[in-house]
Amino acid sequence: MAVYTEVPDNEMAAFVAGYGIGDLLSAKGIAEGVSNSNFLLHTTQGFYILTLYEERVCADDLPFFIGLMEHLAQRGLICPQPLRTGDGAAVGRLAGRPAAIVTFLDGLSVRRPTVAHCGEVGRGLALLHEAGRDFGMQRANVLSVPGWRPLAEQAGAEADTVLPGLSKRIFAEIEAHERNWPQGLPSGIIHADLFPNNVFFIKDQLSGLIDFYFACTDAFAYDLAICLNSWCFEADASFNLTKGQALLAGYESVRPLEAAEVAALPALCRGSALRFLLTRLVDWLNVPEGAFVKPLDPLEYDRKLAFHQRVSDAREYGLRR
Amino acid sequence: MAVYTEVPDNEMAAFVAGYGIGDLLSAKGIAEGVSNSNFLLHTTQGFYILTLYEERVCADDLPFFIGLMEHLAQRGLICPQPLRTGDGAAVGRLAGRPAAIVTFLDGLSVRRPTVAHCGEVGRGLALLHEAGRDFGMQRANVLSVPGWRPLAEQAGAEADTVLPGLSKRIFAEIEAHERNWPQGLPSGIIHADLFPNNVFFIKDQLSGLIDFYFACTDAFAYDLAICLNSWCFEADASFNLTKGQALLAGYESVRPLEAAEVAALPALCRGSALRFLLTRLVDWLNVPEGAFVKPLDPLEYDRKLAFHQRVSDAREYGLRR
Repeated sequence: MAVYTEVPDNEMAAFVAGYGIGDLLSAKGIAEGVSNSNFLLHTTQGFYILTLYEERVCADDLPFFIGLMEHLAQRGLICPQPLRTGDGAAVGRLAGRPAAIVTFLDGLSVRRPTVAHCGEVGRGLALLHEAGRDFGMQRANVLSVPGWRPLAEQAGAEADTVLPGLSKRIFAEIEAHERNWPQGLPSGIIHADLFPNNVFFIKDQLSGLIDFYFACTDAFAYDLAICLNSWCFEADASFNLTKGQALLAGYESVRPLEAAEVAALPALCRGSALRFLLTRLVDWLNVPEGAFVKPLDPLEYDRKLAFHQRVSDAREYGLRR
Repeated sequence: MAVYTEVPDNEMAAFVAGYGIGDLLSAKGIAEGVSNSNFLLHTTQGFYILTLYEERVCADDLPFFIGLMEHLAQRGLICPQPLRTGDGAAVGRLAGRPAAIVTFLDGLSVRRPTVAHCGEVGRGLALLHEAGRDFGMQRANVLSVPGWRPLAEQAGAEADTVLPGLSKRIFAEIEAHERNWPQGLPSGIIHADLFPNNVFFIKDQLSGLIDFYFACTDAFAYDLAICLNSWCFEADASFNLTKGQALLAGYESVRPLEAAEVAALPALCRGSALRFLLTRLVDWLNVPEGAFVKPLDPLEYDRKLAFHQRVSDAREYGLRR
């Protein structure tokens, strides 16, 4: 959560004018999104979100992200809808960065999800997978198995300064996945980062999904594994089976899992826990001088990984069969 | 700019419900205000700002700040208007802190004020002084002359790590003010922190004043001196006389200065430059571990102070007489 970029006077008003949404009345830097600078705009026509894309988002991927949000919104999914200028461009440049304006979504993200929230997000995730089926673009998941070894090497022996023995355990885990990663599962558009801070609720009802900047083409069940990791553990790293049941039942109420997905779920949960352990570890070891952002604890995902390593059947996550 | 406090689930919705402004639909942490946590709220009735008061604001002063904003708004000044619960309370508690909700104001703060902006803010400052005349409460300016020596002692010899010789110059300046500080000037409610980030504009017209948490009872001309410091210098610490002329003319179009105020202006400008030099210096030397906030450069105010030390007549600030 951070505003990284300060936008010079007048430049913002001129940028907004291009989108034909009236005159700019207010712009507040908001603490939302980890990788980008976001501003909540008020114009004479309404409220909008302005995003300035910082380095971490590759400019070449923006047409995919923008196109995906447009596609999903057209399919009825509640997500930010990109605006286009009179020339038809969604992405422009502001303060030296690619920038876009999307619609403002109501809703509050929950810090401590309840069972009801887990059911809602399971259902929402399946709706997202269904809505993305006929989207024409593809994007490889750069943070799947082939991306893990380079991350582990980037952290290197320093990982052991965070927790003794961590480096060795990480490489062993990577090796196991490189040999046995599930193949040929039903695939399509996945969100790949549907943590509680990216899901909005109004009175326990899901009201929108945001932050599609990790979205890619990968196995649907991998997305589900990411959600099991980020929604169904308690603060002490214990797994809440009732939440798992709700999330999986919510998902299957829209899109029932195939047998191969059920069989793969423990491996996918391990892999996705490893993925967040690795990226958090690299961030943890590379906090820039004078950073505004507190890095997230990598060991939260080491503890979750340890849980998954002892799981052998998807029923242990609450899948009803 | 920072959001310091994270508010637990449901607590915020319950807090908002007490104010009778409908159901909470959205709450975004915003980068506004230096000392407090601010959230932009959307409810079924409109947009509001929720402020959580952090340590730096003394809870005992809140009735003064809240009462002042209500008073000024009733007198027609555009400033945040505090809301009250059914019980008549403006300040409640949220996440262990005093908290209040005020109306949302449109407008953009300018990073590089133009001459036109300076004229507007001069006029706005005088309107604030006039609107505060019949406000019944008082609050001493704890950051005036008696507060400077303790700040300088807090910085101590460490000041010289920022710039060699700074400590000695500061104590000499304090001594000069302790002997000769202007007395008996027209006084009343002053904002005491009317920097560009606390003034909103829509298309070059002043649309509102915010952040009254340094407001106190002191000489009106001292407030004007603070504005000359914060609005009329260029980034290289050169004084822009045209901006000074506009600011002073704007002020006098509402409230002409008395002869004693004119005579005191150079001393007041020196004093107010010293006040911001001192608080910034203490902040600079005391950045907490893991801070989210980048401290402001104290030497900006050392350079401004040096300018004022060579001024002997208010006409050098652009006062037309």
